[in-house]
Amino acid sequence: MARYSPSIQRLITELGSLPGIGGKAAQRLAFHIIDMPQEKADMLTDAIVTARKSTKRCSCCHNFTDSDPCQICSDNTRDRSTLLVVESPRDVSTFERTHEYKGLYHVLHGVFDPLRNKSLEDTTITQLIKRLSESSEIKEVIIATNQSAEGNATALYISRLLAPSGIRVTRLAQGLPMGSDIEFADDLTLLSALNGRITLNG
Amino acid sequence: MARYSPSIQRLITELGSLPGIGGKAAQRLAFHIIDMPQEKADMLTDAIVTARKSTKRCSCCHNFTDSDPCQICSDNTRDRSTLLVVESPRDVSTFERTHEYKGLYHVLHGVFDPLRNKSLEDTTITQLIKRLSESSEIKEVIIATNQSAEGNATALYISRLLAPSGIRVTRLAQGLPMGSDIEFADDLTLLSALNGRITLNG
Repeated sequence: MARYSPSIQRLITELGSLPGIGGKAAQRLAFHIIDMPQEKADMLTDAIVTARKSTKRCSCCHNFTDSDPCQICSDNTRDRSTLLVVESPRDVSTFERTHEYKGLYHVLHGVFDPLRNKSLEDTTITQLIKRLSESSEIKEVIIATNQSAEGNATALYISRLLAPSGIRVTRLAQGLPMGSDIEFADDLTLLSALNGRITLNG
Repeated sequence: MARYSPSIQRLITELGSLPGIGGKAAQRLAFHIIDMPQEKADMLTDAIVTARKSTKRCSCCHNFTDSDPCQICSDNTRDRSTLLVVESPRDVSTFERTHEYKGLYHVLHGVFDPLRNKSLEDTTITQLIKRLSESSEIKEVIIATNQSAEGNATALYISRLLAPSGIRVTRLAQGLPMGSDIEFADDLTLLSALNGRITLNG
């Protein structure tokens, strides 16, 4: 016989197709969801539907938002001369958590990744160039794509596109993470930490 | 400012309240769900609603099922003299996976757990006793609750309730798991393996 009834099996399959949810976790979640009070289950499905319905991309920075322009873009206290370019909306919240960065953002929604059939057109690079050409306020673009081959290629590509504009383009520093042991650092990280060494005595 | 828009925050909270989903995983899932094609999102919410709507408890074994009685209870090829008592519906599928057990099941939906405010009335123990008193076919009850203090207490309680009935009550063997090293076994497991030792030569 089938191990589960069809509707349970279907729920397990759907949950198992979500990122980071394996077979066992999907089973556990499915049985939990079936056993939940009706009220809690309604809250879950409603949260999914509402979040999808009310979330759109900010027409300025392309971050996910309920209102357009988003809270950050419409915040007049923020520094409008700096633009931080990130791969995904989650990266925005990571930077916001530091409470240090006060400038604006631009969300690429991906990077140049030919192996996964992601071309530059799948990102918002064109919109970034357009945004920079229309704004005279932005003086520096900080590229904060991930430290991967694709992230680095995208950073390089953007910096070349912006070369004629005269806008300063920077990239996050590579080096040893805080609290790390040199003994366990990989070669590339060690090399970048060595090349990017800073002077301590003036 | 808030780190996420209200609807995204609400989705993260709902997902984070599911078992085994931590803060980071909830964020990751929320952004994945918001970015999914509409069709996939509809399939997910529909799977949740359908599974909850069409899943009921089998009136005989109390396992989750689409049809009542369930596939196992209505399967005439199964051995109706043996009843395996488990804590949760997931345990049924675990035993079915072995393809060895051919008898029937009874799902308790919990164990006696006073620390978590779970009394015996929250389980289907009463229904189990009623089922056994009404059936003359069942000759053996195998108690397969977990090897926890609560699982053992529940097993003992059921065996006492069934003592007058003359039905044979057994419990799954305790001992060393297959492939384990004696060096790393805990004391209780080692002790139960020693006490439950079996004769090899006749």
